[in-house]
Amino acid sequence: MINLDAMLSDNAKNMKKSAIRELLKLTSRPDIISFAGGLPAPETFPVADLKEAADIVFDKHSAKALQYGTTEGDVDLKAEIIKFEARQGVTLKDENLLIVSGSQQALDMVPKLFINPGEYVIAGRPSYLGALNAIQAYQGKVLGIPFTPEMDGFDMDVLARSYSRLVQGGGKAKYIYVIPDFQNPAGLCWSLEKRKALLKFAYDHDLFILEDSPYREIRFLGEHVSSIYQLDQHGENRGIVINLKTFSKILAPGTRTGWIMASEAIINKLVVAKQAMDLCSGVFTQKWLAEYMKSGKIYEQIKKTCENYRVKRNFMVEMLEKHMPKRYDVKWTKPEGGLFLWISLPKYISTDELLLKAIEQEKVAFVAGSGFYFDEPEHNAMRINFSYSSTELIEDGVKRLARIITKEIETYEAGHRAKTLPEGM
Amino acid sequence: MINLDAMLSDNAKNMKKSAIRELLKLTSRPDIISFAGGLPAPETFPVADLKEAADIVFDKHSAKALQYGTTEGDVDLKAEIIKFEARQGVTLKDENLLIVSGSQQALDMVPKLFINPGEYVIAGRPSYLGALNAIQAYQGKVLGIPFTPEMDGFDMDVLARSYSRLVQGGGKAKYIYVIPDFQNPAGLCWSLEKRKALLKFAYDHDLFILEDSPYREIRFLGEHVSSIYQLDQHGENRGIVINLKTFSKILAPGTRTGWIMASEAIINKLVVAKQAMDLCSGVFTQKWLAEYMKSGKIYEQIKKTCENYRVKRNFMVEMLEKHMPKRYDVKWTKPEGGLFLWISLPKYISTDELLLKAIEQEKVAFVAGSGFYFDEPEHNAMRINFSYSSTELIEDGVKRLARIITKEIETYEAGHRAKTLPEGM
Repeated sequence: MINLDAMLSDNAKNMKKSAIRELLKLTSRPDIISFAGGLPAPETFPVADLKEAADIVFDKHSAKALQYGTTEGDVDLKAEIIKFEARQGVTLKDENLLIVSGSQQALDMVPKLFINPGEYVIAGRPSYLGALNAIQAYQGKVLGIPFTPEMDGFDMDVLARSYSRLVQGGGKAKYIYVIPDFQNPAGLCWSLEKRKALLKFAYDHDLFILEDSPYREIRFLGEHVSSIYQLDQHGENRGIVINLKTFSKILAPGTRTGWIMASEAIINKLVVAKQAMDLCSGVFTQKWLAEYMKSGKIYEQIKKTCENYRVKRNFMVEMLEKHMPKRYDVKWTKPEGGLFLWISLPKYISTDELLLKAIEQEKVAFVAGSGFYFDEPEHNAMRINFSYSSTELIEDGVKRLARIITKEIETYEAGHRAKTLPEGM
Repeated sequence: MINLDAMLSDNAKNMKKSAIRELLKLTSRPDIISFAGGLPAPETFPVADLKEAADIVFDKHSAKALQYGTTEGDVDLKAEIIKFEARQGVTLKDENLLIVSGSQQALDMVPKLFINPGEYVIAGRPSYLGALNAIQAYQGKVLGIPFTPEMDGFDMDVLARSYSRLVQGGGKAKYIYVIPDFQNPAGLCWSLEKRKALLKFAYDHDLFILEDSPYREIRFLGEHVSSIYQLDQHGENRGIVINLKTFSKILAPGTRTGWIMASEAIINKLVVAKQAMDLCSGVFTQKWLAEYMKSGKIYEQIKKTCENYRVKRNFMVEMLEKHMPKRYDVKWTKPEGGLFLWISLPKYISTDELLLKAIEQEKVAFVAGSGFYFDEPEHNAMRINFSYSSTELIEDGVKRLARIITKEIETYEAGHRAKTLPEGM
């Protein structure tokens, strides 16, 4: 009989089950309040408008919308995306765009294109785990650059030192992976200066930048900062930045459609990769999104979504301030955009263990921070989502979370006192 | 400045542009009659029924259909597929099914899961090039087993000898890739005996079988033969067959949805692979297909599609018989299902060169046979599609094709006579 495990490729042996995907299954259990998934607020989805757009596709394009399409993507949708990006100061030609089946597909394509086993991607510690898992599935490695809530982007000196150590040790890096707008998991945003510094670093060291921008439009506080893609475009225009966008966060994930912006040379390579991966993204969905965008409603839609998230984010922060233990070592980020905030706990708490207790004892779920590290994970943080739950559930969930954290701290400190007290007696 | 080509992974250096995808662009030029693409007949797409099903999704599932879903696939769609397969004698549990974004995604996942650089897949010569390109993009190799129109499946002695030579030479094969129902490109079908023999060979040598069945339901002549997946299931049930199906050929490619049937152990591994590839397939599309299938119209739809293709296939064969040069070395397959037939020409004709002339001089396109070989291609055959064009275009296109082939043969023979005659003088 065949031994399946023995037959697997080295790629497959490196594949990691996504902690988030597994957790998502919990969200379907009605007794659990889940802050775990990265789910947008369903009440923001413009169901009626999308139905109208779908009806137009059937009536106007009929069978054409049900046929195969080109790998590059539907011309109508690309034309709408070009207009959409132009409003934000990004100049695109058709050749700079590739439509993908959600930006996770792009996160899979880029390491496939660049990374040989053992080669490196430079990325923040922590970073989005879907990107890390995709790199790992090609046996790539990650040079982790610490990125804490107190920081504005990477410490460029640390980056320079880490990179130079890597190169001296014979390591080869191909690109830097960053999420400068409301980074997943911590919700942090990079300043203009830090974006420029990163671009310069990439120029100086012949590295590409993979700029993942799923939350870029979901800014509900503060001012927009130019993307690194724009900085390159309006500067030396070397075409080394690959920028990823998605309809999942600005419209609805059920459309499973994103886009890649990059130089024509890189897009051409990605097209060949995509040919072997899924031939093309679904034509119906692309025409559907194109018709929706033609209505011009996307801008109002984004505004409404941001307003919804601003209210929820503020409410969650308020609830955290009210219910969480008041200590210097229990703190959370206050993001100006995106879907998540990041809670840091005392060093002695492992959120991996806490998660099991939270689900069991309090029926509340989060993502343990360790999942967002490629290696040597930190264990005393968690990511919580504020976009999906109603304010009622946010209040109830934060109370539950605060209770289990308080209990964990008290239990530890009681044990710690019990152990240390006798010494002093 | 970065040298893009120098930065590419070995995988990327192995990626081949799909000849078919590139040709598909030609089909949009209105002056060209294209028999190149694998496009289903758009007049068979049930636009009104699919619109009805989409409307039901908006009304019934609303925002839920627009949210993220599980990687495994939508439970409603899986339930409908289980019923669909049951009608054909395939017993499935939910755990044996994975929904994919078109079966090309599955063709990408399987080599990613099994193939290390330099390892082998056993496949027919010729075989579907999308499968070959996907293998190549992981630096896999293909052990080609000749498979000509005169044959019923592989010659099992040749397979055994080739495999044993491979193993003796230190080569490692992981699975056999076959399309037993109306194989792409030649439209050939394997007998029950040959399917059983292949399964036994796989059992004996601890190999998996990847059975690609996009055309299985598109049989318009003859009797259904059990799939290899069924033969395993109803026999020793070792769970070594991975079977691929798609809605592209039985309903419409624009839905970009397929499914994988396999053992629970294999599905579990594929789920982890898919997590890093695209998180999940689009929920809206899956619910849409589920609602359509619930209507029960899929069976009538398949019947109508088969009838349409039977008429077109018969008409194309009739036109070929009428217009093509009548010679022993100009011949074509007469498939009982699928979308293609395969024309063999005299050995001295290269269809790669003929294609350029055909497009330029006669404005007719086909796929040159060489694209369907992993290595050492044969050059004297072509694949032509009969499902997409109207009978008018089939008649006109075959006339054009016959003209350019006749001209090619006459030119060669005139040159050959001119060259050989002086010797005899």
